[in-house]
This record gives sequence, structure tokens and C-alpha cells, in this order.
Amino acid sequence: MQKKISYIEDFESWKNEFTFYTEIKIRFSETDMIGHVNNVSPFIYFEQARIEFMMEKGIFTEKSIQTTIPIVADLQCDYLEQLYFGNVLKIYVKANSVGNSSLDIHYLGLNEEGKPCLTGRGRLVNIDVKSGTPAKFTEEERQRILS
Amino acid sequence: MQKKISYIEDFESWKNEFTFYTEIKIRFSETDMIGHVNNVSPFIYFEQARIEFMMEKGIFTEKSIQTTIPIVADLQCDYLEQLYFGNVLKIYVKANSVGNSSLDIHYLGLNEEGKPCLTGRGRLVNIDVKSGTPAKFTEEERQRILS
Amino acid sequence: MQKKISYIEDFESWKNEFTFYTEIKIRFSETDMIGHVNNVSPFIYFEQARIEFMMEKGIFTEKSIQTTIPIVADLQCDYLEQLYFGNVLKIYVKANSVGNSSLDIHYLGLNEEGKPCLTGRGRLVNIDVKSGTPAKFTEEERQRILS
Amino acid sequence: MQKKISYIEDFESWKNEFTFYTEIKIRFSETDMIGHVNNVSPFIYFEQARIEFMMEKGIFTEKSIQTTIPIVADLQCDYLEQLYFGNVLKIYVKANSVGNSSLDIHYLGLNEEGKPCLTGRGRLVNIDVKSGTPAKFTEEERQRILS
Repeated sequence: MQKKISYIEDFESWKNEFTFYTEIKIRFSETDMIGHVNNVSPFIYFEQARIEFMMEKGIFTEKSIQTTIPIVADLQCDYLEQLYFGNVLKIYVKANSVGNSSLDIHYLGLNEEGKPCLTGRGRLVNIDVKSGTPAKFTEEERQRILS
Repeated sequence: MQKKISYIEDFESWKNEFTFYTEIKIRFSETDMIGHVNNVSPFIYFEQARIEFMMEKGIFTEKSIQTTIPIVADLQCDYLEQLYFGNVLKIYVKANSVGNSSLDIHYLGLNEEGKPCLTGRGRLVNIDVKSGTPAKFTEEERQRILS
Repeated sequence: MQKKISYIEDFESWKNEFTFYTEIKIRFSETDMIGHVNNVSPFIYFEQARIEFMMEKGIFTEKSIQTTIPIVADLQCDYLEQLYFGNVLKIYVKANSVGNSSLDIHYLGLNEEGKPCLTGRGRLVNIDVKSGTPAKFTEEERQRILS
Repeated sequence: MQKKISYIEDFESWKNEFTFYTEIKIRFSETDMIGHVNNVSPFIYFEQARIEFMMEKGIFTEKSIQTTIPIVADLQCDYLEQLYFGNVLKIYVKANSVGNSSLDIHYLGLNEEGKPCLTGRGRLVNIDVKSGTPAKFTEEERQRILS
């Protein structure tokens, strides 16, 4: 990796920690007049991958969101390669760290050749729907998130 | 008007019946790789104008949507002129007809020169949130919608 | 089918004519505050399916769009079933008729149970990029489109 | 400001450096099933404000993008307040620093009460369209960007 990304210490070991991913086929409506994929679109893909990740981990289910919802506190994306209509991406997600009621999520996008084209991260805060205040993850949830 | 549109009898008199409109500034993300505004985007603008129209008519308010929600049954759009980034449109909305529990909404988009660039229509059905069945408009609502 | 749709004579025979389809996984960003899939989103799916259909038919390729581009003249959608996040749809496309330089495209969306949830249609006009005027399809193109 | 944001030293002086802004009315399609504005949408608003800013500075005009295009290298957003349909935001943009061929852009979103609801930043690299390599800003462009 030529480019230094603040939230990645060593790219290879960082990359090797990902196991969960979802496949994203770029939609025509996600391009823009410059001719490539609009800069906003990777955040659509990160969100999609994040929600599927949280569903698998049991912290974003039809039942769980009645009581607690993980809210996005911040998000960032580094664009490593141009993306074009027709590309099919693998968007990887991992929990980089878990706090009492928050979560640092990392993202990696690979193109068809397996080349990193996107990286990202963002913090989630688990919020109690009724009170609007942070809700602690249970020990079981923390273990599932990190597994 | 060179083009015959099935839901418009006489274009001039149809056009003259509109009074409500909202102004739409096209977003960069709403263009596509062909270089103009994506074909999906006018439906974003119709929806925005429709919701503001329904809010003004009192059939889509924070309170009303607790009990009844107007659901879109169908939608159509005719593209009369190419749209480009930077265009500011006026999207007009009117209730073409009101039934017991449904509504035929018509749309007209004008560009900066006042030239029609979009027309459209679509049917809404007023639905009772609890039962999921059609909910009749009150006489007062019908009068407000048509006023 | 309970609902009469103007562009469908007999639903079963209309449905049986479709063979081309693309699979669409609904994105979280394509839902809205009402809790289901936003009314605009099916037009994203129709567009995606239409472009893949045109690519297969050879009338929307990297090379062909240098000289001619099929432009959307009108679009319509009938919403038969509510759509929710997590749904995976099959969006079918067919050319209902082909003219000298235009095309009537029909759409059918099926949900996971194979139940029709969306239908639609829209006219495309093939445009010469340089002159901006309609460009005739070659006999070969017409045959490919209808095959 | 309760929250520490890495790219902001002193919030008040950072905030006072903004002068350019654009007004954004949230679209209904930009909400999601959680009931508020989707997390992706602020990046639509940042992009819109960034492009208008670059147009004013003369580095993104119909003519200039024939030869050089500013490409987004990275983007980040901090979400300070929940956003809802109906909100009208002011999105401020400034050039935090200008290099030979790159630009660090900062963003601030204020809600109707003038309260900061979004902050962000991202780097742009000015690219020569033909060669695909970085293109230096002229001295005149740098002065316009920083003015």
C-alpha cells in the first residue's frame, strides 16, 4: 500500500483479520456524470455490509431494534481505486474493538481482481430506544461481535 | 405539445389547474454516467412534492400517519426534456380526482425557462395503519385535498 | 390478479413471455421512514434490469454508446405488494414491441415466494449521440432484442 | 462541543472560518426505516456543497473538467445530532489547506437553530483527465480557493 491510512497500522495483518463480507453489484443509478461510481455510493455499500454484519451478530434484528439500536457516530472512507458500473465488490466488515456500549467497525472493499479499492471505519453507539441514552452490550453480545 | 400523453386531455387547461409547487435543486449524486440526471431522480422529486402537498392538505402529518397512511399504488413519468446538474425545477402537484379512499395525483415539472420538462401521475390509496385496509377520507379531508 | 393494469391484457400469458431477469437485493438505504422500501427504489431496480437486458442484447455496450444511446421516454410502475429490507427480488425484463428506433420495455418483479410484487413498462427511444435525433435499429439489432 | 473530533483543534475558531454555504432541504427518499435521515445522506449533502464551492472557486466548471477533475481521496463525517425529514440544513464548506495538486476540504452542517449537526472533512486530488496523474493548481487557482 502506497497510501498511509490513519486507522491501519499494518495493511496485510489488518486485511487478514476480516472474514465476514457481502457481495455488492454496483447499480447504474450509483454512477454520476463524471462517468464512474459516485463518491457517496461506497457509504451505501458500507452500510449494507455493516447491517448484514450486525444481523449476523444478533445486534440488529427485528426483535433487538425494539429495545436498542446501534447509531452511527462517525464514518470515513478512503478511495483507493476508481470504481465503475459493472464492478462487483466484496465488502468486508469487522469489529476492530468493542467498548461498553460502542463499537469500532472497519471496512475493506475488494474488486474482482481481489485488489483493495476501498477502506473505511466508523464508530457505532448502542442506544436504548426509550431513553435515548447509551445501552451496554451484554457479555454474550460482546463475545458474538468479536467472534 | 408534440407528444400525446394518455392522462392529459388538453395540455394547456391541464397545466393551468396546478397551483401548488415545490422547488427542487438537482443534486450532483442524482446524475449518472450518461452525463445527465438519472431517470430515477424525477420520482424522487415527485415524491418530495407529493409529500409536501399532502402535508399542506393535512393527510400526511406526524399525527395523521399514526392512524392512516396514503400508499402509492402506481406511478408514471413522461420525460419531455433532458435534465442536467445545476437545473432548478418547479414540481407542481394537484389532486386530479379523489375517491372514497383513494386519490389520483398529477405532476408537472417546469425548468428555469418555464418549459415543461416532466409530467406524471399516480394513484394513492389511504390505508388504515392497524388493519391494513383502505380508510375513507372524511368529507373535510376531501374538500381540503380538492381546494 | 385482482388489479387491472392497463398495459397487461392477460396476466398469465404476459408473465410467461419473460425469460431475462436480474436478481436485486434491497439495500438498507433504499428503505424510508415509513418502514418499507421507498417508492422510488423500484425504478432503480427496473433501470438496473433494463441496462443488463440492453447489454445482453448489444444495444448498450461500451462501444455502442459512443454512437447511439437508448433514452427513456416514459416509465411506469404498479406496486402490487409491500417490499421490505431483506427481500431479494427477481426483476424480469422483456421487449414488448420494437419500432424503427424505439422500444417498449415491460418489467415484472417477483418476490422470494415467486409472487408478483411489481409490474411496469416504459418506452425507450434510440438516439444518435452526435445529432440528438432518433437512430434506427438495424435489422440485426431488432432480431436480437426480440429473441 | 462535548465530542473530540480529530480534525478540529478549537471548535469555535474552526467554525468561524466558514463563509461559503449551501442550503439543503432533506428529501423524503433520504430517510430510512429507522425513521430518521439515512447515514449515507450527509455525504450527498457534503458532495453538493463541495461541488458548488468548487464551481465558485473556478476549479469545477464545464470548461475546467475537460482538462482537470478534482477526485475525492477520502471523506469522513461526524454525526452530532439526529436529522429528520423536514429539516433544512446549512452546509458550510472551506478549504482547510491547499497543496500543489491537492486540497483539504472541511464541512460543517448547521440545523435550523444554528446548532452544529454534522462535521466532516476530506481530501481532493486534482487529476489531469488525459494522463490520470496529479495536476498542479495554478497560483491564481490557489489564491481563489483560499480567498
